[in-house]
Amino acid sequence: MAVGSTELPVLHPVEGVRLGTTCAGIKSPDRHDLVVIALDDDACVAGVFTQNAFCAAPVTVTKQHLSTAAPKLFVINTGHANAGTGQQGVKDALAVCTALASLHDCAVNEVLPFSTGVIGENYPVDTVKIGLPGAYAALNTQGWQDAANGILTTDTMAKGQSEKIIIDGHEVTITGIAKGSGMIRPDMATMLAFIATDAAVSSKMLKKCLSNAVANSFNRITVDGDTSTNDACMLIATGKSGLPLIESEGDTYQRLCDAVSRICEYLALAIIRDGEGATKLIKIDVQEGKSEQECKDVAYTIAHSPLVKTAFFAADPNWGRILAAVGRSGVTDLDLNILTIFLNDVCIVSEGGRAPGYTEAAGQQVMDQDEITIKVSLGRGLYSACVWTCDLSYDYVKINAEYRT
Amino acid sequence: MAVGSTELPVLHPVEGVRLGTTCAGIKSPDRHDLVVIALDDDACVAGVFTQNAFCAAPVTVTKQHLSTAAPKLFVINTGHANAGTGQQGVKDALAVCTALASLHDCAVNEVLPFSTGVIGENYPVDTVKIGLPGAYAALNTQGWQDAANGILTTDTMAKGQSEKIIIDGHEVTITGIAKGSGMIRPDMATMLAFIATDAAVSSKMLKKCLSNAVANSFNRITVDGDTSTNDACMLIATGKSGLPLIESEGDTYQRLCDAVSRICEYLALAIIRDGEGATKLIKIDVQEGKSEQECKDVAYTIAHSPLVKTAFFAADPNWGRILAAVGRSGVTDLDLNILTIFLNDVCIVSEGGRAPGYTEAAGQQVMDQDEITIKVSLGRGLYSACVWTCDLSYDYVKINAEYRT
Repeated sequence: MAVGSTELPVLHPVEGVRLGTTCAGIKSPDRHDLVVIALDDDACVAGVFTQNAFCAAPVTVTKQHLSTAAPKLFVINTGHANAGTGQQGVKDALAVCTALASLHDCAVNEVLPFSTGVIGENYPVDTVKIGLPGAYAALNTQGWQDAANGILTTDTMAKGQSEKIIIDGHEVTITGIAKGSGMIRPDMATMLAFIATDAAVSSKMLKKCLSNAVANSFNRITVDGDTSTNDACMLIATGKSGLPLIESEGDTYQRLCDAVSRICEYLALAIIRDGEGATKLIKIDVQEGKSEQECKDVAYTIAHSPLVKTAFFAADPNWGRILAAVGRSGVTDLDLNILTIFLNDVCIVSEGGRAPGYTEAAGQQVMDQDEITIKVSLGRGLYSACVWTCDLSYDYVKINAEYRT
Repeated sequence: MAVGSTELPVLHPVEGVRLGTTCAGIKSPDRHDLVVIALDDDACVAGVFTQNAFCAAPVTVTKQHLSTAAPKLFVINTGHANAGTGQQGVKDALAVCTALASLHDCAVNEVLPFSTGVIGENYPVDTVKIGLPGAYAALNTQGWQDAANGILTTDTMAKGQSEKIIIDGHEVTITGIAKGSGMIRPDMATMLAFIATDAAVSSKMLKKCLSNAVANSFNRITVDGDTSTNDACMLIATGKSGLPLIESEGDTYQRLCDAVSRICEYLALAIIRDGEGATKLIKIDVQEGKSEQECKDVAYTIAHSPLVKTAFFAADPNWGRILAAVGRSGVTDLDLNILTIFLNDVCIVSEGGRAPGYTEAAGQQVMDQDEITIKVSLGRGLYSACVWTCDLSYDYVKINAEYRT
């Protein structure tokens, strides 16, 4: 059960984008597991991908196709990651692209493949190919909600967000969906996320817009520190809104970017709220560092500490574990005497140890909440960094111990 | 229940070292929780300590005392770490030293304090002081077994090892005890370990001997990646064996070092066998790297992956998670096509993906064992590194969620 989960909001159609979802029977017969997204001509696409050195076959193929053609179709399957599958995996991903290209009468490199699921097993290429006509036949502009469900793995809820804003007198729509729950520490990339707008944006500015949005959303979340082999986040601009082409920075670009960033942050937090076994959403806000990097080092060390995470699961204000994590973050010359740590608005560490006036009752009151901010002030500079994570529960172990059974 | 646990072996007395243990009632009335170790005059002592930036008050005091005097007494309490306790923590540690010094009629800086337990709570200085006469009165050369029990926290078994060897015609004894189960990723240090020999060794050579032994034992283990604030490993040389003073390298020095290293490795593995919630002992052996550092990076990334650790708990040969961990280790230009991964003698990854001939049944047979080696060959150099860890189980979460209740 996700932390503070809500119904999937209304996902507005984006003109120029159609989505079709089907049950291909990849892992179980009645599950939506195959999604096709079709883009009208002239759509511009930007993508960021996993930094895992062993990226999956579909990531390799998508990057290559994206560099050689304007994409017309995405195909996304869940159940199998097609990662660790060697040259056969690349052949299989291309075979799926070829089958879909023949349905749509386009070139193979105009199809981008995405996969998510178990790493290493042989890719069920025939099952996916048999499912393609059904997904293709289902294509329609209202298909966002089904697609949001069709890309899930261990997620317990579909993740999407949508906005309509007025820019320069034109109504512009931005809609996005994402999946992700475990193996989450996106690194210059994300889990699978697909975001589309009907604004018209040049390739260069679309890449910049996506890169900025991802840096402060998907790249600031972690469930378990494990970076997937299959992460990808795609941003589509169809150009159907009537808003003139955005080719440079300026107010119009900035307003679109702000909206894309809001969608990305919402989706990123939805992934953490739905982190495997999560019972708490934890924001770690490190301030007053000498550099952004040292703030990130401290934040991720706290976020990855199994001892901190289990204490949050138990709602135990065992602040010594937070302090110990800061101390082992590798940042040199930290001065405990000027460091402060807050749990929400309760000061737990100051003056070199437990804060004067701190009471276990005050700490407990914060820990009993579902959403908690750990604020660490290093007292030595002007930089800051923010990371979101969740706790470590019995259910995390259960989900991952039983994943393949 | 520790993995492959055995009875505590016979711990031979070391002439010149006496140990006394008592129930001081620090956390519960009937638990052995306070240990005093007394050294005869002329003993030489070396120590390595936690690299956590916020080391505990007793670590600060021990380092200072060790640099200004020849130690005569150690005092070790369990139940409270005296960490994150600011200046009051240092005062409390010194107060305990002062009380013990007055019993022994020695200087305060001839006493080294050690603490382990909950971080951050106020140190129960009066309870510890009241317990000191009992521990001091119990001092005797046969006290190793009681001391091994008296320093435990969440450990489920006492840890000790002992050897008698003949060097240059003299019988030399080396005996050591250790504690540790969670918050284990010693970094140039260890959890608490106390090792003594009756050899005579100069201060310089004793430090070198300890440093070498720790580098390949305590510094190569991890339970949860969390480096404690209180880690310390002490090596005592009493000089009572009759063996002439070791002042330089050579065969005599080497034979002693080999024995100390064996003791340290045994104790380090005992800590992992008894890792919180551990059901498997996992050795990660990374070979053919361009540097030792990159081999360590790969090994620790695997060792800290919650997904790898939960798969081992489930005895699931989900080798894709191992491959994904190698891929995110931060080592640049890794070539999947020349990399191989073995589980014991079963090749699971080669030629860019799942090894030809690998079967799930073969993987399962390895995973059903209690002690497993993951061997990763990077195929790009001559360096190697070895790390030991354990799995991540429900009981790890349970132990750490309920630690303070």
